[in-house]
Amino acid sequence: MKKINVALLGFGNLGQSVARILLEKKEEIEKVYNTTVSVVAITTKTRGNLVDAWGIDLERVLGNIQETGVFPKASETMLQRNALDVAEAVEYDVLVEMTPLEYATGRMATDHIMAALKRGKHVICANKGPLAWHYKEIEALAEKNGCKFLFESTVMDGTPIFSIVRENLQMCKVTEIKGILNSTTNYILQGLEHGKTAKEVVAEGKKRGFIETNPKNDVEGHEAAAKMAALVNVLMGADITPDDIEVTGIEDITKEDIDKAAAKGNVLKLICRAYEKNGQLHVKIAPEEISKLNAYATVTGTSQVISITTDLMGTMTIIEESPEMEQAGYGVFADLLTIIKDL
Amino acid sequence: MKKINVALLGFGNLGQSVARILLEKKEEIEKVYNTTVSVVAITTKTRGNLVDAWGIDLERVLGNIQETGVFPKASETMLQRNALDVAEAVEYDVLVEMTPLEYATGRMATDHIMAALKRGKHVICANKGPLAWHYKEIEALAEKNGCKFLFESTVMDGTPIFSIVRENLQMCKVTEIKGILNSTTNYILQGLEHGKTAKEVVAEGKKRGFIETNPKNDVEGHEAAAKMAALVNVLMGADITPDDIEVTGIEDITKEDIDKAAAKGNVLKLICRAYEKNGQLHVKIAPEEISKLNAYATVTGTSQVISITTDLMGTMTIIEESPEMEQAGYGVFADLLTIIKDL
Repeated sequence: MKKINVALLGFGNLGQSVARILLEKKEEIEKVYNTTVSVVAITTKTRGNLVDAWGIDLERVLGNIQETGVFPKASETMLQRNALDVAEAVEYDVLVEMTPLEYATGRMATDHIMAALKRGKHVICANKGPLAWHYKEIEALAEKNGCKFLFESTVMDGTPIFSIVRENLQMCKVTEIKGILNSTTNYILQGLEHGKTAKEVVAEGKKRGFIETNPKNDVEGHEAAAKMAALVNVLMGADITPDDIEVTGIEDITKEDIDKAAAKGNVLKLICRAYEKNGQLHVKIAPEEISKLNAYATVTGTSQVISITTDLMGTMTIIEESPEMEQAGYGVFADLLTIIKDL
Repeated sequence: MKKINVALLGFGNLGQSVARILLEKKEEIEKVYNTTVSVVAITTKTRGNLVDAWGIDLERVLGNIQETGVFPKASETMLQRNALDVAEAVEYDVLVEMTPLEYATGRMATDHIMAALKRGKHVICANKGPLAWHYKEIEALAEKNGCKFLFESTVMDGTPIFSIVRENLQMCKVTEIKGILNSTTNYILQGLEHGKTAKEVVAEGKKRGFIETNPKNDVEGHEAAAKMAALVNVLMGADITPDDIEVTGIEDITKEDIDKAAAKGNVLKLICRAYEKNGQLHVKIAPEEISKLNAYATVTGTSQVISITTDLMGTMTIIEESPEMEQAGYGVFADLLTIIKDL
């Protein structure tokens, strides 16, 4: 039986979802790939850190988090190390970067990743910051050191957007990307449609757990911009940052705008677009009127949609329907299986 | 430079599309995979057959078909062999089965495939018959002889449905499949909606080239049933034939039915469904009323849609927007690249 040692940076909803899937599929991984996955480190900002070369008991840790919100204080494996220390010093085979998105730079997450790649370790990244701000630099180091750098869960959770283009649309050139990639804004626009105020909708979304404490970066389009930068850097060979994207958020949308659109049989959606025109890449995020007869108009709640247009395969539209946290966890898990398969 | 010899059975719209892509991507394949693709045989029912161990000049053949509708009669490579003869006797590495779907048995295409697999040759199949009627038998022989058996273009052209589940949704168990998989019926229902008679719509579709001379198998749901049998056999591990599917076509749908649905904010669509309930697989094809607020209602013209639900990834819906013949050709081409990559 082979063994693969994994370090998890971040253990919020996503990290916990990954841990649950690892427990659930433990026997199947052992059977299919003759491999045991051992989590040797978990770092968090507020719950403490765990390092254990013998493997952390995920079931116990999940129970602790459930009960007390933190790791067991008395644990002999508890260490006062931060994520970068772990990336640089702990013995692991795969680093999983799941720290929160850091707007404007994506630097901290990138530092964790570079530290791992410098040591010749594989990296799974669930944080879109490094792709949005430093993709070329990371990709170059990964290639130089023969490491895998995978990041399926950064856009639309575990929906295999990056893998589909990389593995299933071989030799296709991506000419256009379009999508509704931020569910907070989509949810707010839908609420306005139904006569609620933005404030009411945000309060409701926070209560239901899928709108962040401060949704400013969602509402102003910055979260979507980070995703679009990641998408065009990876899929269209671009080298941009979110600052290069023309972004208009939904903060100025009023009920009147929505009613005006409705009178024409349209709905308002925050649409992300990237396309090439005369050899020039254009990337834009802005509210647009979409016909109710278009599939995009039917994407509501927490669902998201992306359309990939290529030279050979025309346009393929993928809707992720009402994802739960498990779907984001699956994105990380699928990346891990890709690494395990190649061991 | 490696060389891969390919035999094409069938050279209608699909085969010609494959040939055009092979010409277009010739240099890229040589560069990326250090491999030359050589077509050593083409068989057809009405255009003649070509066999040439040195490689057929695809550009010349496409030109001939364009001009005269048949292969060059005087060609020294012209042979009076049928598809099975070629499958059994010609020297090739990959057989591409593109003969027309044979309802009720799928036998002839299956015979071609089995002949190739018996000889240890790889097979690409664009014909859903073998998957709908004989998948287990073919798959077993392919595995025994270490051959690849790929069939991406059988459902939704080149949309990589089978590859996504096989490669990108690893360890996910498919629990449900749903789709609008027959564009003829979708197009007819849409025409009825707009006040045309079925006869008028069919005539129009034939003129535009995407409705067959005799659309009976489409209208009665048999074409969709062949696709669903293929899907559940491959993706859900079933062993059924289209005869095991409960099929209701659209032949009895009237304008009144459509108006009644419209009054409720619905449209009528021919919906394919497969799901497990109490350990039992249910597969059903029938017209259903779909809310206009659902993405399925927006799938019109020649577009198709499929939703795959898995235990770990929830529901992913994929729309293929207004495919052209090139997209079906791409499905075969992508399968060929998969084989080339592993050479």
